Amino acid sequence: MTYDPGNIFAKILRGELPAHRVYEDEKAFAFLDIMPRSTGHTLVIPKAPARNILDIEPDDLAHVIGVAKKIAVAQMAAFGADGITVQQFNETAGGQVVFHLHVHVIPRFEGVELLPPQSKMETPEVLAANAAKLKAALEG
Amino acid sequence: MTYDPGNIFAKILRGELPAHRVYEDEKAFAFLDIMPRSTGHTLVIPKAPARNILDIEPDDLAHVIGVAKKIAVAQMAAFGADGITVQQFNETAGGQVVFHLHVHVIPRFEGVELLPPQSKMETPEVLAANAAKLKAALEG
Repeated sequence: MTYDPGNIFAKILRGELPAHRVYEDEKAFAFLDIMPRSTGHTLVIPKAPARNILDIEPDDLAHVIGVAKKIAVAQMAAFGADGITVQQFNETAGGQVVFHLHVHVIPRFEGVELLPPQSKMETPEVLAANAAKLKAALEG
Repeated sequence: MTYDPGNIFAKILRGELPAHRVYEDEKAFAFLDIMPRSTGHTLVIPKAPARNILDIEPDDLAHVIGVAKKIAVAQMAAFGADGITVQQFNETAGGQVVFHLHVHVIPRFEGVELLPPQSKMETPEVLAANAAKLKAALEG
């Protein structure tokens, strides 16, 4: 399996598609899922090309999971979450839809089930407000 | 939230409970889930105490995800998997049941759904055979 630079996350990294960015550094980028399974559902991706966990450089993977931890801690504060679910899918059989490695970091709330994947497009207004809350918590 | 050293994964690390070990180094331990959601379902844990992603030391988290990658690559070969699903749950609302950080690394096969969590205890014979296959792939 090879990396296809035409995937939508590569386009986001190149600025060819917009995203509700919440965090960025020299090696990783984090943004809100536009079809969130829960309020504040965030994706963390490496800037370097990697299809998934099977081919990513170990240093890039370590960096991405470190950013996922920061996002998780900030989500607890920003959204008053009760827990966090982390998911990372590899190949179609593993649940992967976009073939640039991404870690789902999903705030959870007592008694609230996750929405099914890709079930509902969130409005830009809600996404912008949630991105602002999460950025504030990351910087706070 | 604090770390409770009485959790079952801490007992496995202390040798007070058995486990079908597949990998071990100075900082991490990996073993088969006794109620696998798929053939070869493996858990990777840090040796250092950590409740979950919210409190783990970043270096320990980076090491654990690096071991999860090795396990994923080996599972593809050992079980002829078509993909890998990685999950990591934090706090009860996030799906966590045992409060020592663990990463689920789950082989996936085309057209086969995951079993529900904690649905069926696997036999020791099957677990031992799968552990042997995975260890051979890790060492190969």
